Amino acid sequence: MDIRFTGVIPPVVTPFNHGEIDLDSLGRTVDFLISSGVHGLFVGGSSGEVAYLTDSQRDAVIATVVERAAGRVPVLAGAIDTTAHRVIEQARRAEVLGVDAVVATCPFYAINDAAEIADHFRAIAAALNVPLLAYDVPVRLNGKKLGRDLLVALGKEGVLAGVKDSSGDDVGFRRLVAANAAAGHPLAVLSGHECVVDGTLLLGGDGCVPGYGNVDPGRYVALWEAAQAGNWAVARDLQDQLCAGFEIVYVPRGRSGDATGIGAFKTVMAAQGTIDTNDMAFPVRALDGEARDGVLAIARAQGLI
Amino acid sequence: MDIRFTGVIPPVVTPFNHGEIDLDSLGRTVDFLISSGVHGLFVGGSSGEVAYLTDSQRDAVIATVVERAAGRVPVLAGAIDTTAHRVIEQARRAEVLGVDAVVATCPFYAINDAAEIADHFRAIAAALNVPLLAYDVPVRLNGKKLGRDLLVALGKEGVLAGVKDSSGDDVGFRRLVAANAAAGHPLAVLSGHECVVDGTLLLGGDGCVPGYGNVDPGRYVALWEAAQAGNWAVARDLQDQLCAGFEIVYVPRGRSGDATGIGAFKTVMAAQGTIDTNDMAFPVRALDGEARDGVLAIARAQGLI
Amino acid sequence: MDIRFTGVIPPVVTPFNHGEIDLDSLGRTVDFLISSGVHGLFVGGSSGEVAYLTDSQRDAVIATVVERAAGRVPVLAGAIDTTAHRVIEQARRAEVLGVDAVVATCPFYAINDAAEIADHFRAIAAALNVPLLAYDVPVRLNGKKLGRDLLVALGKEGVLAGVKDSSGDDVGFRRLVAANAAAGHPLAVLSGHECVVDGTLLLGGDGCVPGYGNVDPGRYVALWEAAQAGNWAVARDLQDQLCAGFEIVYVPRGRSGDATGIGAFKTVMAAQGTIDTNDMAFPVRALDGEARDGVLAIARAQGLI
Amino acid sequence: MDIRFTGVIPPVVTPFNHGEIDLDSLGRTVDFLISSGVHGLFVGGSSGEVAYLTDSQRDAVIATVVERAAGRVPVLAGAIDTTAHRVIEQARRAEVLGVDAVVATCPFYAINDAAEIADHFRAIAAALNVPLLAYDVPVRLNGKKLGRDLLVALGKEGVLAGVKDSSGDDVGFRRLVAANAAAGHPLAVLSGHECVVDGTLLLGGDGCVPGYGNVDPGRYVALWEAAQAGNWAVARDLQDQLCAGFEIVYVPRGRSGDATGIGAFKTVMAAQGTIDTNDMAFPVRALDGEARDGVLAIARAQGLI
Repeated sequence: MDIRFTGVIPPVVTPFNHGEIDLDSLGRTVDFLISSGVHGLFVGGSSGEVAYLTDSQRDAVIATVVERAAGRVPVLAGAIDTTAHRVIEQARRAEVLGVDAVVATCPFYAINDAAEIADHFRAIAAALNVPLLAYDVPVRLNGKKLGRDLLVALGKEGVLAGVKDSSGDDVGFRRLVAANAAAGHPLAVLSGHECVVDGTLLLGGDGCVPGYGNVDPGRYVALWEAAQAGNWAVARDLQDQLCAGFEIVYVPRGRSGDATGIGAFKTVMAAQGTIDTNDMAFPVRALDGEARDGVLAIARAQGLI
Repeated sequence: MDIRFTGVIPPVVTPFNHGEIDLDSLGRTVDFLISSGVHGLFVGGSSGEVAYLTDSQRDAVIATVVERAAGRVPVLAGAIDTTAHRVIEQARRAEVLGVDAVVATCPFYAINDAAEIADHFRAIAAALNVPLLAYDVPVRLNGKKLGRDLLVALGKEGVLAGVKDSSGDDVGFRRLVAANAAAGHPLAVLSGHECVVDGTLLLGGDGCVPGYGNVDPGRYVALWEAAQAGNWAVARDLQDQLCAGFEIVYVPRGRSGDATGIGAFKTVMAAQGTIDTNDMAFPVRALDGEARDGVLAIARAQGLI
Repeated sequence: MDIRFTGVIPPVVTPFNHGEIDLDSLGRTVDFLISSGVHGLFVGGSSGEVAYLTDSQRDAVIATVVERAAGRVPVLAGAIDTTAHRVIEQARRAEVLGVDAVVATCPFYAINDAAEIADHFRAIAAALNVPLLAYDVPVRLNGKKLGRDLLVALGKEGVLAGVKDSSGDDVGFRRLVAANAAAGHPLAVLSGHECVVDGTLLLGGDGCVPGYGNVDPGRYVALWEAAQAGNWAVARDLQDQLCAGFEIVYVPRGRSGDATGIGAFKTVMAAQGTIDTNDMAFPVRALDGEARDGVLAIARAQGLI
Repeated sequence: MDIRFTGVIPPVVTPFNHGEIDLDSLGRTVDFLISSGVHGLFVGGSSGEVAYLTDSQRDAVIATVVERAAGRVPVLAGAIDTTAHRVIEQARRAEVLGVDAVVATCPFYAINDAAEIADHFRAIAAALNVPLLAYDVPVRLNGKKLGRDLLVALGKEGVLAGVKDSSGDDVGFRRLVAANAAAGHPLAVLSGHECVVDGTLLLGGDGCVPGYGNVDPGRYVALWEAAQAGNWAVARDLQDQLCAGFEIVYVPRGRSGDATGIGAFKTVMAAQGTIDTNDMAFPVRALDGEARDGVLAIARAQGLI
């Protein structure tokens, strides 16, 4: 396992201002996260609104994060596109921009089986000079879940260096960790869920990629350190505090999934001063009115602002 | 309703040969379809394996089809990408290449609500000089179905000129046709399903976009003409014959959705001589062995080869 | 095929009044349907709120319908329970009460495969002296769809006499009709959908089981007769009229699926005088206020009241 | 919270022998579980194949378990039927037979909203003299998940005494535990998943209802005790051992969900001598051949036989 890809690796949000990417706010976010002690940065993920960014916007975001991180922590970049040849084009540009690893999903829009998905990852890894991690996010990908056997086999082959598991399948996560351990631990197995990091570390997970880590990175770092030290009651308490803050994503009613989750993160970050506005990528509108007030009320009660 | 977008409009397959796009075979396919009497061509759809094509491959395919069609029938091009700004980049290139209309889905990978989806289509239409049609294909898009009220409202606004409905929701299709008629018929409502064209024309649909139309276009044209003449028993018989041939897609066992459906079409087309090989886009492997034999046996029994 | 199970066979609603089954209203419903020309009655289906009825209530409903029908049309009874041995207990009671056929679903709550489901139907059929029909209703049954091959094989074996297809899978319906025809037509294939009866009869379906047939049975009978005569334009117009009335089920907002659909039927039936109240089985509350007004406004506009 | 419903409460399997329930084996299972230290027994759950049992079979099973338990541990009984009035009939019989609590799901086959589901549980609780627990098992119930707010509200009302959560939604579980704690802990919140008990106890869960507890109850009891003592590393190791044994359920290929899971448990239990055969309820066939061998190989490697 490549230890550069363990610990707390937040998926960095992409700040906007009146429809344009706000690179100043992005730079401040990078500084805030690194100074909070995170172990890596994941740029171009779902929380980074990657699906809404054109190729030139993606490049600008990656370049800014790589430059600002300046080697202090590794930078992983999502190369999100429908199939291997398109992913490779995304990934090579990221590689040229200096990222330390690429993260790719299984094909989407396309309808493939396990053998085709394995070849997909093999082709991407073969085209790159940096490590490849798989991104398992069925909620965005027609429910497609990457199988345990597929992932561990690709780990043993040297195709994959890790997995970001955002599947919400806790039994599947534990089975993956166990099979990975039995295979010599080729994969860094990272949880993409904000609210069960204590449990996933207890069972042997290698880290987490929490979107809410943009809001409260220091507490995730403290949770990680408690877990490393075996202080599970402390870890649980920190996780409970994180969960109490994460309730912000359940406040907005009648809005889309992206508006609700990422929108709540940005709303608190703007109030914290990390970013200038809580604007979202078109066509998602920023939270305002009661939704914004409700999010901030929770953030205030949790001492986040 | 723009009558250029009615009748039989097959989604053109993308022929491959050893991993490269075979533009000669593509040109022959265009000629075959037009000489069979089809009323339009849809390039860059799911049957065209659009999700597997890089941007430069997409451009080459569109350019070839536009040039070969040479104005004999209108050419509609899929501009398939995750969100509006990315779709617009795809669509503008297609527009420059001379297509007569653009076809776009709702956002995918992104998680949006109806208001955001409406803005998505509005932004795409505003960026184009050619008409925009919506492509409703929940099976590839996380189950997201475009709502009847949304579609008809966007038709009345002048944002959408039509809909390709591949949702398989027959009740929804009829409700859409009825609401569209009540609104003055702004939309060309096209069925994307191969096997129920007679019924969808009986209830007032404006045409069809059948992937299997690559294999047997003449019979779809005859079905369309029978329906136009009100010869419903004849239409039904032709549809039954088409369904008997369409059974080729159920032959391959244990293969992916794309390998099975598009793969079966290409297998018969290669045997017909329209295209050189039944190769698929990477990482999908062509049908061979028993699957290929089974497909060809049906095609032979139906007089297709 | 047993021709007793073809034509228009409405699933009879179960009238309630202050929490008790209203057998007088039920009797009037039976008379209304038969005098409108329907070809059979299906009691104890989803539209009959069978899932809400205790065994003694089910028996009272079946007894009333059988007695009131008095042999004028065949009576089919749903025997709805989780698995074969429980279904058999339901079915035998119905048989004793004099029904002409039993209708059963695949197992639910249980999680079974195709072989187990086949044995399920075989056991039920073996325990009965009346014919057995299968009820395919995935929307209530965890998405489980009865396969074409399974159904036709059980038809050829003599296990099944027919299928009520409420799956909404139009391609599957056509493939079932074609395979059934090729096998010598052992099954009566009935559509459970209100809005596509013209198309399903055009392609060779044997009848329909429309819940909305409780509201407007005469028009379904006229549609059936037009289809039998090959007057497809007339059939389509009647179907369009039925669909315009069926819009009542889309009026209620923010209510459950059962409240909305069956509730809308009962609301119009009460206004027609067929039943005394639009009460529903506990815990479903009757439509009232704006929802009721909206339903009745459509019914009035369509000349149903 | 009623502490009778905390700790390790296995869902007791229902042994069969040539199609008949084997009450001797059932009695031995009860003794084995109680002597292993479990804190309660759940009879008539999914692992007990409740959906396959007739009412008289259900009664025989409940009577046997109550009598054999003889007050040593509380007995909870599933009252599994489609809607409230039917559930109440099941529950009252169980109550007469002496159970200490009843467990009921939300309605199924019926399609209800949250308000109707709340009334469903209220009616059941009002009809009983023993406590009522909710059983949240979306995989069997059309994906319906009981909401956190609904459950906690019904806890505060005194309608529900607890929840068996078999939803696999780990974030939802944690949010339920937190909201329940904030409300004064009215509910005993039990995990229905075999493989994440350590994590659910760490975050504050009140116990577990593991089907695999029929096979290895002692280790679950040891895990519970380690968690109570705050020995999380020990708890994790025990959980890892339980997970290694639980791999038996993934061995059988090409069989149904019920055949695979419950079938694997029974196969090991028969080899352990707790029950006479690994027979399943009709129409599920017992595991045999390679599947049986594979299950037993794992059980042997884990020291279970």
